[in-house]
Amino acid sequence: MKALVKIMPKNGVLDPQGKAIENSLNQLGFSQVGNVRQGKIIEIEINSNNEQEAKKIIEEASNKLLANLVIEDYEISFLKED
Amino acid sequence: MKALVKIMPKNGVLDPQGKAIENSLNQLGFSQVGNVRQGKIIEIEINSNNEQEAKKIIEEASNKLLANLVIEDYEISFLKED
Repeated sequence: MKALVKIMPKNGVLDPQGKAIENSLNQLGFSQVGNVRQGKIIEIEINSNNEQEAKKIIEEASNKLLANLVIEDYEISFLKED
Repeated sequence: MKALVKIMPKNGVLDPQGKAIENSLNQLGFSQVGNVRQGKIIEIEINSNNEQEAKKIIEEASNKLLANLVIEDYEISFLKED
Protein backbone atom coordinates (compact mmCIF):
# COMPACT_ATOMS: atom_id res chain seq x y z
CA MET A 1 0.00 0.00 0.00
CA LYS A 2 1.24 3.51 -0.70
CA ALA A 3 0.69 6.31 1.79
CA LEU A 4 1.06 10.01 1.09
CA VAL A 5 1.95 12.39 3.88
CA LYS A 6 1.40 16.02 3.02
CA ILE A 7 3.29 18.35 5.36
CA MET A 8 2.54 22.06 5.25
CA PRO A 9 3.68 24.98 7.39
CA LYS A 10 0.95 25.88 9.87
CA ASN A 11 -1.13 28.96 9.18
CA GLY A 12 0.65 31.96 10.61
CA VAL A 13 4.09 30.38 10.36
CA LEU A 14 6.39 32.25 8.00
CA ASP A 15 7.10 30.40 4.78
CA PRO A 16 10.03 32.08 3.02
CA GLN A 17 10.19 29.46 0.25
CA GLY A 18 6.55 30.00 -0.61
CA LYS A 19 7.07 33.77 -0.53
CA ALA A 20 10.03 33.46 -2.90
CA ILE A 21 7.97 31.42 -5.35
CA GLU A 22 5.13 33.94 -5.10
CA ASN A 23 7.47 36.86 -5.86
CA SER A 24 9.11 35.02 -8.75
CA LEU A 25 5.76 34.13 -10.28
CA ASN A 26 4.58 37.73 -10.01
CA GLN A 27 7.79 38.93 -11.64
CA LEU A 28 7.33 36.43 -14.43
CA GLY A 29 3.97 38.05 -15.15
CA PHE A 30 1.62 35.64 -13.41
CA SER A 31 -0.53 38.45 -12.02
CA GLN A 32 -3.40 36.15 -11.02
CA VAL A 33 -1.22 34.33 -8.52
CA GLY A 34 -1.93 35.19 -4.90
CA ASN A 35 -0.59 33.63 -1.74
CA VAL A 36 1.77 30.67 -2.24
CA ARG A 37 2.86 28.17 0.40
CA GLN A 38 5.31 25.35 -0.04
CA GLY A 39 5.30 22.09 1.83
CA LYS A 40 6.65 18.59 1.55
CA ILE A 41 5.05 15.44 0.34
CA ILE A 42 6.35 12.05 1.34
CA GLU A 43 5.31 8.87 -0.47
CA ILE A 44 5.78 5.78 1.67
CA GLU A 45 5.37 2.18 0.59
CA ILE A 46 4.07 0.20 3.49
CA ASN A 47 3.82 -3.57 3.81
CA SER A 48 0.34 -3.84 5.20
CA ASN A 49 -3.01 -4.43 3.60
CA ASN A 50 -4.92 -3.04 6.51
CA GLU A 51 -5.49 0.66 5.94
CA GLN A 52 -6.24 1.31 9.59
CA GLU A 53 -3.03 -0.33 10.75
CA ALA A 54 -1.06 1.46 8.02
CA LYS A 55 -2.56 4.77 9.08
CA LYS A 56 -1.50 4.18 12.67
CA ILE A 57 2.06 3.42 11.60
CA ILE A 58 2.25 6.47 9.35
CA GLU A 59 0.81 8.71 12.07
CA GLU A 60 3.44 7.50 14.50
CA ALA A 61 6.17 8.02 11.89
CA SER A 62 4.88 11.54 11.16
CA ASN A 63 4.85 12.48 14.83
CA LYS A 64 8.27 11.00 15.53
CA LEU A 65 10.19 11.94 12.42
CA LEU A 66 8.47 13.37 9.38
CA ALA A 67 6.76 16.49 10.63
CA ASN A 68 7.78 19.19 13.07
CA LEU A 69 4.48 19.63 14.87
CA VAL A 70 5.46 23.00 16.31
CA ILE A 71 5.42 24.62 12.90
CA GLU A 72 3.90 22.03 10.55
CA ASP A 73 0.63 20.20 10.03
CA TYR A 74 0.36 16.89 8.30
CA GLU A 75 -2.33 15.01 6.40
CA ILE A 76 -2.27 11.33 5.53
CA SER A 77 -3.93 9.78 2.52
CA PHE A 78 -3.62 6.50 0.68
CA LEU A 79 -3.07 5.86 -3.00
CA LYS A 80 -5.32 3.30 -4.61
CA GLU A 81 -3.32 0.54 -6.22
CA ASP A 82 -4.23 -2.55 -8.17
CA MET B 1 -9.44 29.15 -6.08
CA LYS B 2 -6.63 27.14 -4.55
CA ALA B 3 -4.42 24.94 -6.70
CA LEU B 4 -2.10 22.23 -5.45
CA VAL B 5 0.98 21.30 -7.45
CA LYS B 6 2.56 18.04 -6.37
CA ILE B 7 6.13 17.71 -7.61
CA MET B 8 7.89 14.36 -7.29
CA PRO B 9 11.25 13.08 -8.54
CA LYS B 10 10.73 10.98 -11.68
CA ASN B 11 10.95 7.23 -11.36
CA GLY B 12 14.55 6.21 -11.71
CA VAL B 13 15.90 9.53 -10.49
CA LEU B 14 17.88 9.21 -7.27
CA ASP B 15 16.11 10.69 -4.27
CA PRO B 16 18.62 10.99 -1.41
CA GLN B 17 16.16 12.77 0.89
CA GLY B 18 13.64 9.97 0.52
CA LYS B 19 16.37 7.41 1.09
CA ALA B 20 17.46 9.18 4.27
CA ILE B 21 13.90 9.16 5.59
CA GLU B 22 13.55 5.49 4.71
CA ASN B 23 16.75 4.59 6.58
CA SER B 24 15.77 6.66 9.61
CA LEU B 25 12.33 5.07 9.77
CA ASN B 26 13.84 1.61 9.56
CA GLN B 27 16.30 2.48 12.32
CA LEU B 28 13.45 3.77 14.47
CA GLY B 29 11.87 0.34 14.18
CA PHE B 30 9.30 0.95 11.44
CA SER B 31 10.00 -2.37 9.77
CA GLN B 32 6.89 -2.28 7.57
CA VAL B 33 8.15 0.80 5.76
CA GLY B 34 9.44 0.16 2.25
CA ASN B 35 10.48 2.59 -0.43
CA VAL B 36 10.14 6.30 0.48
CA ARG B 37 10.25 9.23 -1.91
CA GLN B 38 10.07 12.87 -1.03
CA GLY B 39 8.66 15.62 -3.17
CA LYS B 40 7.34 19.14 -2.87
CA ILE B 41 3.84 20.42 -2.70
CA ILE B 42 2.97 23.97 -3.61
CA GLU B 43 -0.34 25.56 -2.69
CA ILE B 44 -1.21 28.50 -4.90
CA GLU B 45 -4.10 30.89 -4.49
CA ILE B 46 -5.26 31.97 -7.89
CA ASN B 47 -7.65 34.77 -8.76
CA SER B 48 -9.81 32.99 -11.28
CA ASN B 49 -13.08 31.16 -11.02
CA ASN B 50 -12.56 29.27 -14.22
CA GLU B 51 -10.85 25.98 -13.41
CA GLN B 52 -9.72 25.48 -17.00
CA GLU B 53 -8.08 28.89 -17.16
CA ALA B 54 -6.52 28.37 -13.73
CA LYS B 55 -5.14 25.01 -14.81
CA LYS B 56 -3.54 26.59 -17.85
CA ILE B 57 -1.87 29.25 -15.72
CA ILE B 58 -0.61 26.74 -13.18
CA GLU B 59 0.70 24.45 -15.92
CA GLU B 60 2.63 27.32 -17.43
CA ALA B 61 3.99 28.29 -14.01
CA SER B 62 5.02 24.69 -13.34
CA ASN B 63 6.83 24.39 -16.64
CA LYS B 64 8.56 27.75 -16.29
CA LEU B 65 9.44 27.83 -12.62
CA LEU B 66 8.07 25.28 -10.21
CA ALA B 67 9.25 21.96 -11.57
CA ASN B 68 12.48 20.81 -13.16
CA LEU B 69 11.03 18.65 -15.92
CA VAL B 70 14.32 16.83 -16.49
CA ILE B 71 14.12 15.14 -13.11
CA GLU B 72 10.64 15.90 -11.78
CA ASP B 73 7.02 15.20 -12.64
CA TYR B 74 4.16 17.39 -11.53
CA GLU B 75 0.46 16.92 -10.95
CA ILE B 76 -2.10 19.69 -10.57
CA SER B 77 -5.26 19.48 -8.52
CA PHE B 78 -7.70 22.00 -7.13
CA LEU B 79 -8.99 22.36 -3.60
CA LYS B 80 -12.72 22.77 -3.22
CA GLU B 81 -13.58 25.94 -1.37
CA ASP B 82 -16.81 27.51 -0.22
